[in-house]
Amino acid sequence: MASRITLLTDYGYRDGFAGAMKGVILSRSAAATIVDLSHEVPAGDLRHASCVIGAVAPYYPAGTIHVVVVDPTVGTDRLAVAIVCDDQVYVGPDNGVFTEILANAINPVAVTALDNSAFHCQPVSSTFHGRDVFASCAGYMAAGVPVGAMGSPVDPATLVRLPEPLVDVESGLARGEILTSDHFGNLISSLRAAHLAALGDNVKVTVGSTVIAGLSQAFADVPAGQPLAYLGSAGRLEIAVNRGSAAEALGLVPGTEVLVERA
Amino acid sequence: MASRITLLTDYGYRDGFAGAMKGVILSRSAAATIVDLSHEVPAGDLRHASCVIGAVAPYYPAGTIHVVVVDPTVGTDRLAVAIVCDDQVYVGPDNGVFTEILANAINPVAVTALDNSAFHCQPVSSTFHGRDVFASCAGYMAAGVPVGAMGSPVDPATLVRLPEPLVDVESGLARGEILTSDHFGNLISSLRAAHLAALGDNVKVTVGSTVIAGLSQAFADVPAGQPLAYLGSAGRLEIAVNRGSAAEALGLVPGTEVLVERA
Amino acid sequence: MASRITLLTDYGYRDGFAGAMKGVILSRSAAATIVDLSHEVPAGDLRHASCVIGAVAPYYPAGTIHVVVVDPTVGTDRLAVAIVCDDQVYVGPDNGVFTEILANAINPVAVTALDNSAFHCQPVSSTFHGRDVFASCAGYMAAGVPVGAMGSPVDPATLVRLPEPLVDVESGLARGEILTSDHFGNLISSLRAAHLAALGDNVKVTVGSTVIAGLSQAFADVPAGQPLAYLGSAGRLEIAVNRGSAAEALGLVPGTEVLVERA
Repeated sequence: MASRITLLTDYGYRDGFAGAMKGVILSRSAAATIVDLSHEVPAGDLRHASCVIGAVAPYYPAGTIHVVVVDPTVGTDRLAVAIVCDDQVYVGPDNGVFTEILANAINPVAVTALDNSAFHCQPVSSTFHGRDVFASCAGYMAAGVPVGAMGSPVDPATLVRLPEPLVDVESGLARGEILTSDHFGNLISSLRAAHLAALGDNVKVTVGSTVIAGLSQAFADVPAGQPLAYLGSAGRLEIAVNRGSAAEALGLVPGTEVLVERA
Repeated sequence: MASRITLLTDYGYRDGFAGAMKGVILSRSAAATIVDLSHEVPAGDLRHASCVIGAVAPYYPAGTIHVVVVDPTVGTDRLAVAIVCDDQVYVGPDNGVFTEILANAINPVAVTALDNSAFHCQPVSSTFHGRDVFASCAGYMAAGVPVGAMGSPVDPATLVRLPEPLVDVESGLARGEILTSDHFGNLISSLRAAHLAALGDNVKVTVGSTVIAGLSQAFADVPAGQPLAYLGSAGRLEIAVNRGSAAEALGLVPGTEVLVERA
Repeated sequence: MASRITLLTDYGYRDGFAGAMKGVILSRSAAATIVDLSHEVPAGDLRHASCVIGAVAPYYPAGTIHVVVVDPTVGTDRLAVAIVCDDQVYVGPDNGVFTEILANAINPVAVTALDNSAFHCQPVSSTFHGRDVFASCAGYMAAGVPVGAMGSPVDPATLVRLPEPLVDVESGLARGEILTSDHFGNLISSLRAAHLAALGDNVKVTVGSTVIAGLSQAFADVPAGQPLAYLGSAGRLEIAVNRGSAAEALGLVPGTEVLVERA
């Protein structure tokens, strides 16, 4: 059976990095289906990569292998890992990129350090484990090699996680922070629908110096150029500007506090 | 038989939007072949998307499903549609993105409103129909579900079209306008070969304050940095600068008039 | 057997150029697997394209067809060629984009001018041979048509090569130049591991006004913001800035001399 491998990296589109990864995968498993998620994660942005793979992976069928390479400490002693989680496999550096995947896991996960060099490209470049370790191991997985054969078991509790973002829910109030932004300049916060449920529909959202009345359903609920708050497609509270960029118009950066109160 | 689905969106490459769409498609039809046309249509630019899908679709085999999502009014009451046209299927919002496809159609088209929620991801996000409606329905189509089963029939005459661009052909003269530009900064006009046929080969092209003598065959027909006019690969009159960007060098924007006269 | 075709172009991601190429390929060979290497080679940058395909192709299985279209003189009398080299096929303009492939070739190559118009899209656009010549011929190759049937034989010695970059190795010293940069702003030089072997490990690297002591293994070997020199993943000496862009921070451009001396 042909296996499916997705790729999520910060390698960009102008060079041959993603192309070399695909060649290695197809050399190991000629029938693998390769799916580009993105190669334009902002360079080194572990939070963004963690949010993207966390939001996207649930839409993939069981058995999918997700390769995530945002790896600023490549070549140091950070582990290379494969995480088997809820019928899918996640391959990448142990540096926090799998924080959301681990937070959302329903069943216990099994983790393997990809330290069996028989499954790497030789010699391993110290700056391109995406090709020589992660794509190579994923290609062998797609060809049917069991994940556990590729290295030593790792205690899931020891995996690196990014710092917990601010989520503070009190009576009549929820406080969170901006985690990242998207292509449109929409701002994605740490607050989820469940955090807002007790507040009802009549709320006021404050972010930086901007105050927004109520939650919208559609961008077009407000005039062009105006800000709105809404529950985004990944289940988080988002701030946008209709037909514009909230990241530019509001000047907000990751870490900015978001306050939701009863109006 | 495995089906083929192309994707054309303004979702960009840095997030998980296109990746989520692909996951939904593969969850509905594991053997579908997914082809990225572009995810970098300028945000909300319906004219650009309409020109791209109109130029590209004729090169695809019969049976291809084209998903086009440039959807600034997502979440409002604009229709979600599937258009069966000349042996291919077009899936997307009814907001004008299919203007060129409808203008070029040889045979009568059949249109279905994708309003049968059994074929959507549940719950449907009000801001991401690309995933929850369009990719989901396209995936079911690839799996063999008839388009007509996914909703109510729509009268093709009621579909939204973008305003007709300027095309005014008189004796010895053709007047059009710049529609959009491409990655190289080449400017694409509303004038087609047929509009210019009566003028012969010896023409003068005026666009803004730039006057160009004659039509060229190759960029290299003029020195580097010089403007040229030529019939482009999509059959329209285009304005370029050899080894440069006409959009930057000439300062022209969509809507600028293009005048072609006998020299 | 399904064939595999990779695409490397400077067509960008916002238009339908790559999408049209894919349609033509799939119309010739419905079962072909299409792999995007990159469509963001800097416009017209033959050196960059040559370096990318040279670095990536060795990771692909035998039988892969690589289509490379960076083609500023499209429409002139430059040849369109297919080069059979070390069990892979390279399709593109004869303008130097295959310089690295030819330099790395282990076995003699066979070259065909793609001048048999029966294998082109008709009419051939004078500005888009990527679609009408290169994708069309590659699609027929994937469908099993022999390369030699698509045109006349060409003497490999007559193929266009880019100028040899500076590589000057003397006793205790190696002199090279910056060839190109990558997405991260890392600078890639003309010097290979073999050129540096005689110098030992204790070297000093000078590039522009920057002096770097020793070769590093990992970006994180130096503090954030500091420059380092290392043997990159394509086997060449590279200059980077940890967590930054050497191209921006050091202000270096292609052609800048790189000097490696015993420290």
